[in-house]
Amino acid sequence: MNITPPIYKRLARKYFHRRTAPGAAPGTLVSDKSKHPTTMRTMTYGSGQLVEQKIEQLDQLPKPHDGQVVWLDITGLADAPIIEAIGKTYSLHPLALEDVLHVHQRAKVDEYGNVLFVVARMLYDDRPLDSEQVSLFLAKNMVITFQEDPGDCFDIVRERIRQGGRICARGPDYLVYALIDAIIDAYFPRLESLGTDLDDIDAQITASRGRHSLSRLHEIRRILIFLRKLLWQHRDALNVLVRQENELIAPDTHVYLRDCLDHVVQLLDVAETDRDSCIGLQELALAEIGQRTNDVMRVLTLITTVFMPLTLIAGIYGMNFDPNSSPLNMPELRWFFGYPFALSLMSILAVIMLGFFWARGWFHR
Amino acid sequence: MNITPPIYKRLARKYFHRRTAPGAAPGTLVSDKSKHPTTMRTMTYGSGQLVEQKIEQLDQLPKPHDGQVVWLDITGLADAPIIEAIGKTYSLHPLALEDVLHVHQRAKVDEYGNVLFVVARMLYDDRPLDSEQVSLFLAKNMVITFQEDPGDCFDIVRERIRQGGRICARGPDYLVYALIDAIIDAYFPRLESLGTDLDDIDAQITASRGRHSLSRLHEIRRILIFLRKLLWQHRDALNVLVRQENELIAPDTHVYLRDCLDHVVQLLDVAETDRDSCIGLQELALAEIGQRTNDVMRVLTLITTVFMPLTLIAGIYGMNFDPNSSPLNMPELRWFFGYPFALSLMSILAVIMLGFFWARGWFHR
Amino acid sequence: MNITPPIYKRLARKYFHRRTAPGAAPGTLVSDKSKHPTTMRTMTYGSGQLVEQKIEQLDQLPKPHDGQVVWLDITGLADAPIIEAIGKTYSLHPLALEDVLHVHQRAKVDEYGNVLFVVARMLYDDRPLDSEQVSLFLAKNMVITFQEDPGDCFDIVRERIRQGGRICARGPDYLVYALIDAIIDAYFPRLESLGTDLDDIDAQITASRGRHSLSRLHEIRRILIFLRKLLWQHRDALNVLVRQENELIAPDTHVYLRDCLDHVVQLLDVAETDRDSCIGLQELALAEIGQRTNDVMRVLTLITTVFMPLTLIAGIYGMNFDPNSSPLNMPELRWFFGYPFALSLMSILAVIMLGFFWARGWFHR
Amino acid sequence: MNITPPIYKRLARKYFHRRTAPGAAPGTLVSDKSKHPTTMRTMTYGSGQLVEQKIEQLDQLPKPHDGQVVWLDITGLADAPIIEAIGKTYSLHPLALEDVLHVHQRAKVDEYGNVLFVVARMLYDDRPLDSEQVSLFLAKNMVITFQEDPGDCFDIVRERIRQGGRICARGPDYLVYALIDAIIDAYFPRLESLGTDLDDIDAQITASRGRHSLSRLHEIRRILIFLRKLLWQHRDALNVLVRQENELIAPDTHVYLRDCLDHVVQLLDVAETDRDSCIGLQELALAEIGQRTNDVMRVLTLITTVFMPLTLIAGIYGMNFDPNSSPLNMPELRWFFGYPFALSLMSILAVIMLGFFWARGWFHR
Amino acid sequence: MNITPPIYKRLARKYFHRRTAPGAAPGTLVSDKSKHPTTMRTMTYGSGQLVEQKIEQLDQLPKPHDGQVVWLDITGLADAPIIEAIGKTYSLHPLALEDVLHVHQRAKVDEYGNVLFVVARMLYDDRPLDSEQVSLFLAKNMVITFQEDPGDCFDIVRERIRQGGRICARGPDYLVYALIDAIIDAYFPRLESLGTDLDDIDAQITASRGRHSLSRLHEIRRILIFLRKLLWQHRDALNVLVRQENELIAPDTHVYLRDCLDHVVQLLDVAETDRDSCIGLQELALAEIGQRTNDVMRVLTLITTVFMPLTLIAGIYGMNFDPNSSPLNMPELRWFFGYPFALSLMSILAVIMLGFFWARGWFHR
Repeated sequence: MNITPPIYKRLARKYFHRRTAPGAAPGTLVSDKSKHPTTMRTMTYGSGQLVEQKIEQLDQLPKPHDGQVVWLDITGLADAPIIEAIGKTYSLHPLALEDVLHVHQRAKVDEYGNVLFVVARMLYDDRPLDSEQVSLFLAKNMVITFQEDPGDCFDIVRERIRQGGRICARGPDYLVYALIDAIIDAYFPRLESLGTDLDDIDAQITASRGRHSLSRLHEIRRILIFLRKLLWQHRDALNVLVRQENELIAPDTHVYLRDCLDHVVQLLDVAETDRDSCIGLQELALAEIGQRTNDVMRVLTLITTVFMPLTLIAGIYGMNFDPNSSPLNMPELRWFFGYPFALSLMSILAVIMLGFFWARGWFHR
Repeated sequence: MNITPPIYKRLARKYFHRRTAPGAAPGTLVSDKSKHPTTMRTMTYGSGQLVEQKIEQLDQLPKPHDGQVVWLDITGLADAPIIEAIGKTYSLHPLALEDVLHVHQRAKVDEYGNVLFVVARMLYDDRPLDSEQVSLFLAKNMVITFQEDPGDCFDIVRERIRQGGRICARGPDYLVYALIDAIIDAYFPRLESLGTDLDDIDAQITASRGRHSLSRLHEIRRILIFLRKLLWQHRDALNVLVRQENELIAPDTHVYLRDCLDHVVQLLDVAETDRDSCIGLQELALAEIGQRTNDVMRVLTLITTVFMPLTLIAGIYGMNFDPNSSPLNMPELRWFFGYPFALSLMSILAVIMLGFFWARGWFHR
Repeated sequence: MNITPPIYKRLARKYFHRRTAPGAAPGTLVSDKSKHPTTMRTMTYGSGQLVEQKIEQLDQLPKPHDGQVVWLDITGLADAPIIEAIGKTYSLHPLALEDVLHVHQRAKVDEYGNVLFVVARMLYDDRPLDSEQVSLFLAKNMVITFQEDPGDCFDIVRERIRQGGRICARGPDYLVYALIDAIIDAYFPRLESLGTDLDDIDAQITASRGRHSLSRLHEIRRILIFLRKLLWQHRDALNVLVRQENELIAPDTHVYLRDCLDHVVQLLDVAETDRDSCIGLQELALAEIGQRTNDVMRVLTLITTVFMPLTLIAGIYGMNFDPNSSPLNMPELRWFFGYPFALSLMSILAVIMLGFFWARGWFHR
Repeated sequence: MNITPPIYKRLARKYFHRRTAPGAAPGTLVSDKSKHPTTMRTMTYGSGQLVEQKIEQLDQLPKPHDGQVVWLDITGLADAPIIEAIGKTYSLHPLALEDVLHVHQRAKVDEYGNVLFVVARMLYDDRPLDSEQVSLFLAKNMVITFQEDPGDCFDIVRERIRQGGRICARGPDYLVYALIDAIIDAYFPRLESLGTDLDDIDAQITASRGRHSLSRLHEIRRILIFLRKLLWQHRDALNVLVRQENELIAPDTHVYLRDCLDHVVQLLDVAETDRDSCIGLQELALAEIGQRTNDVMRVLTLITTVFMPLTLIAGIYGMNFDPNSSPLNMPELRWFFGYPFALSLMSILAVIMLGFFWARGWFHR
Repeated sequence: MNITPPIYKRLARKYFHRRTAPGAAPGTLVSDKSKHPTTMRTMTYGSGQLVEQKIEQLDQLPKPHDGQVVWLDITGLADAPIIEAIGKTYSLHPLALEDVLHVHQRAKVDEYGNVLFVVARMLYDDRPLDSEQVSLFLAKNMVITFQEDPGDCFDIVRERIRQGGRICARGPDYLVYALIDAIIDAYFPRLESLGTDLDDIDAQITASRGRHSLSRLHEIRRILIFLRKLLWQHRDALNVLVRQENELIAPDTHVYLRDCLDHVVQLLDVAETDRDSCIGLQELALAEIGQRTNDVMRVLTLITTVFMPLTLIAGIYGMNFDPNSSPLNMPELRWFFGYPFALSLMSILAVIMLGFFWARGWFHR
């Protein structure tokens, strides 16, 4: 995964926005033109038939019948009136609709009378610290989904509907399962790529390379915390779904939801393990820095300790005491072996110093 | 958010005060002239009517009737006798009144017979580590609120009452919800501004600038811990409210309370994530300091290691051994190429040293 | 709070003592002359009357009647026979009596038939890491308290009894509440003073002063852990009391106990927050040390890097190569501008070095 | 245990693979030729008889009768059609079969109608961070096991069946217990070897040797986290099994399952303790590095502090001030005891310096 | 407590052994000659009588009658056949017997029909990281205990039986309580001695002495983790015992078991607090190391900064520029006050440097 810093910075905070205005009346829907324009399409299947349709007018909104499943898929949340009209047509609770528009909900399951409201969060391909809110309504014979942006991970589900897979033989509850399952499955490659990144950094640190490991590890850890938070929310939400005693969800769909919950738990496992690895690697990288400072210090001390005494000796024999004033004044300067003596003294001292450090093990790194 | 240190220091401890006197009889109300003087006003609405009134005399205190909602809003807690009188008029429990005056209660919900007592904590605009206690009593047809200081985040609620919004069609329980919701909503911009601060610091640390990051991070972390504590309290209190089987709270108000609880949980999520970020950034800033020490050390060691041997050579050829006493005494001094030889020796040594450090990768930062 | 180290050291371990002899029969009471001698006094109140009495003889021990409350207050645990006699007179369980004497119990509530046994722990004024055990027995019409040492925080309760406050109109359960409440209230000033200490240290660290902060923080953290442990115990004990379905405790006393529990939870909140602050400050102080090492290193490196090359140049022109042996031998020494050239070389080098460090930002701290 | 880095790197991520294709229909079985080819064998025992058979054709698949236990053991998961056929023959649920093929399941217990599906994870001998999935189906009179690779820890179970041990007198539930028990038992030597490694490192750090301790500790900690995760999964799964009210599991088998659960808890205990040790050792190793830096610094400072003043003195008496120009110019150079005086000055200074450091305790390490 | 490293190293791992052979049939008892040889003795008391007997032959095994309590105490687990025979005589479950022999069980309580099986762990006097397993069987009128080694903390219980204490008037359940209580009581002095050690180290660190504190703290922390683990196990086990609705345990024994549970909780409290202290001290010791490095650095920088410029000046005036070649060449050398000027320059520079450091507060430690 290529974490481009500018995007990362620009989007880091996007996942947390205040409600329209603090203290506004709950259930107020406000159009926001910075969002994508709203488009609608439906897939109606069951009894062997399949109709796909793009909805242009609100009066085209389908009325679901028994024996068929209608999936109304709305993309883009810019036009509050349209969404409000949909809410009225299908009797969706105002608070739920408000949650649809305020796209920073946690993943959750709420029950409003005979409609089940599920919020799930879909990963973006290009924004590591952001997620798209998908709001699902499960009603009798009907599933309504709201997405923030065009592009989703549901194509494989649509394909399975078109090919008349098992999904066509079952009710809307199974469709909800299939959609959530598709969202969850998209977490796998993300975590896998982070894991690969961690392995690379591990190799780099062990090889004592890679000075920028620490800020990369910090970034990865932040993404892992972000993913873990999302996964916990989905875990909670799926737990509610699995335990739900609700006539909207057929008993044999529970097995599939439980399977999906298993996947989330498995992902959480991986995220936790990777976070542990990440922390461990950060500590290792820190220790590596400390160890290097130590090594550098040792070189410095070695050099200083070896050369300082030698420099002193050279300095002493560079003093200008007058040999004529006294026989005590630097007689070495006139010895026959004076110069060799001084050089030998230096060499011997250097060897002793090096031997001392050798004995203390400073050369065995 | 601009965290001015002096205010921060002055107020840091204000949120924690001892009860009037340790061991005093519970239920004793003591006037405290350091507090704001007590003022009262009411809003009476329902059945399409709205009366706003400033109460000057205790005998003006309203008697609520069926079909209307009376909101008695008391600001300033300086005059214990007035508050005691209000308590007697509306049969509020002495312990609850004591909690009203001792403004360091946790957010909580207590049930005293047919009156529900809620404590919520409102953020101050200018004091990051302090919060104002708002005490709410929910009785039949009536809501009583006590605030410490003038100025609150309830204006938007008052406006909605004046405009005859949905709030006017519902009972006092909905008013309590609306007030709590207004308090909670005010946490969003605070957390958002802290988050922006964290992002700035993140950018600074990554750019290796900003030496004072650590104490700023410490401050932000402290505020986050403070906010998290408040949010946990509200979460607990709202959980009690949502689960309350109480005739004072209509069943369909529960949906709204649950929505408010959702907001608190969402805020907690953000606070936790920001706290994790904060800790991560602190560690990164620390590592940055260690890394810099390392870099500085490397420069020092490099310089020392390169220059010490050269200085020694210069020192040696500065010795005054007498060439007349012996042909062994520093014959180099009289070589034809003596001086160039010495300079070349130095240059070669320097190049070897630098090559050694190059090989060890000290120049590739 | 003035934490005098010697006392702190001397008393640190006092709060943890082994039972009389490991494996001794439970219920064995052993006199311990190192403890305070045992004295007894009673307060008997109710029906508008109040009798205070000092008990000298065991046969003076009061027999409680209906309609009055007897508070038998025993101070000093040196005389096991007296305590055993009291136990027999009022049918206290041997294991509870053993707990009275082994003064290192946790705060707790035990039910022995129709007697309720409560252990609470009272703070000492002068020993930050020690607490005094107060054992309370609640029986019909009677409260018995055992304290380790003279001096307590109950005077305010006694005063309220003497002044015929609400306490006189209620049963012994309310007295037990009032005593526990007095003990808990004494925790407030202690935590407040620790909080003030923390604020001071915070200010010192931010001002980069105060080298002994770390050991003071360690001490404060230790005291906070100690207080938190005590508060948790009281929280557990009060939770048991509040939930107790026991005829000894009147239903309307529960409201007061719950209020007391609220105080404990509030104190725990403060202790937790302060502990977080303490840890944060420790980390900040550590980072400050690292930052200073960094600053010191920078000065060292700067000086070394600037002066080493200059010293080398001076050393080179101090070499004694013989100018007469060769025109190549140090011709600079006989240049007309030789000396100024050397000094200029040094100055230019120094300026280049300083410019290099300026560019790397070593002067912008 | 010999942790070969290349294998460790290569396999670190193998334990986490995405499902066949994100969003694929659940229950889809896809052949994967990178897996081991599928082989089957059966052991049929009970009523004193034992038949072992290698299954080559799907029509050889045994039909279990009352009074006997059939253990169908499938190794290698390459051939999806064969596995699908087995699933159809014995009515195994498609989701369970999918889990069999996607070999990255957590250890778990699922109930599908009258078949119990257990996933356990078997350690590899040569891959410290990988585990093999063993899927067990417990049906009436029958146990079916799927393994990823040839080679397992079940030989001892097979031997006990061949020798007609207690296992032959009991039902398939006991066989499931015996197999899980064999898997769990294989964790003991792994943890034991890690513990021994930790002890070795402890000894090395205490002896101030072993610079590579930190990366080894990081590796061990990672393996411990991996093992702990597996053990937690098995603990959860066994808890479900022990509490299962299922006619497939005889009541007296519960005692054995509880015993197996005890072993897992014991292993968890060891893993937790070892992880604590590991963290402690990492901190100790870090402190050791800091301590060494300290020691090296002290040597450096000592040498510098002793030699710098001496070098300065030598430098001073090496200055060339002209004695003929002024009697003030370096008269020492012509003193009778000039040279001895300079040497003595140096010696005295050195002794004073050393004494100063001695007094500050720099020699007492 | 004197923690002798060799013993500590040798025994560190002893507390964790694999079962006889991985995958062996459960309930297999294998003789292990490395264990102590098995000896047996009984105490039979009740109805005022007491018989103590050493059992040499298996047919001497006592048959308990109503109205008496038989305590069969087996020491040493080397002879599996004897233990198997005892198991058969008293109908002990094979899995329980297996647990008796595999002496690395957690403290626990298991119920096998009408026999209660309790595992407790007794501290060794001389092995800080090891504990001896004591297995207790409570049957009707009978208690059977198995110990690994001779020597235990039960002498005080035996003495109380001999002296006809309260223990003789009660059933075998009270004997089990007394034995567990004796085991738990022996934890008190161990924790007390560790606490004293911690206080000593605290004093040493505060006094900036004691370089080996860190490895000692690591050792103490490891022991505390070990003790805490044991205490948690006992807490769990005693919780089961206290809550057990079992006819083997008389209701009034529950009070005593609860008292014993209280002791364990108290010990856990101390262990937790000590562990917190230990971690705090480790951090303090680490900070102390960092602080010292800082101090050493400051001395080094001071010396270097003061002497380097002086050495440079001496070097400059030691240059050999020829005064005869140019009047610009080092005229200072022939000044009348040349030498005093140079010395004064040096002194002034030194004073300025020292003043600079004084101003930056480097002398105020």
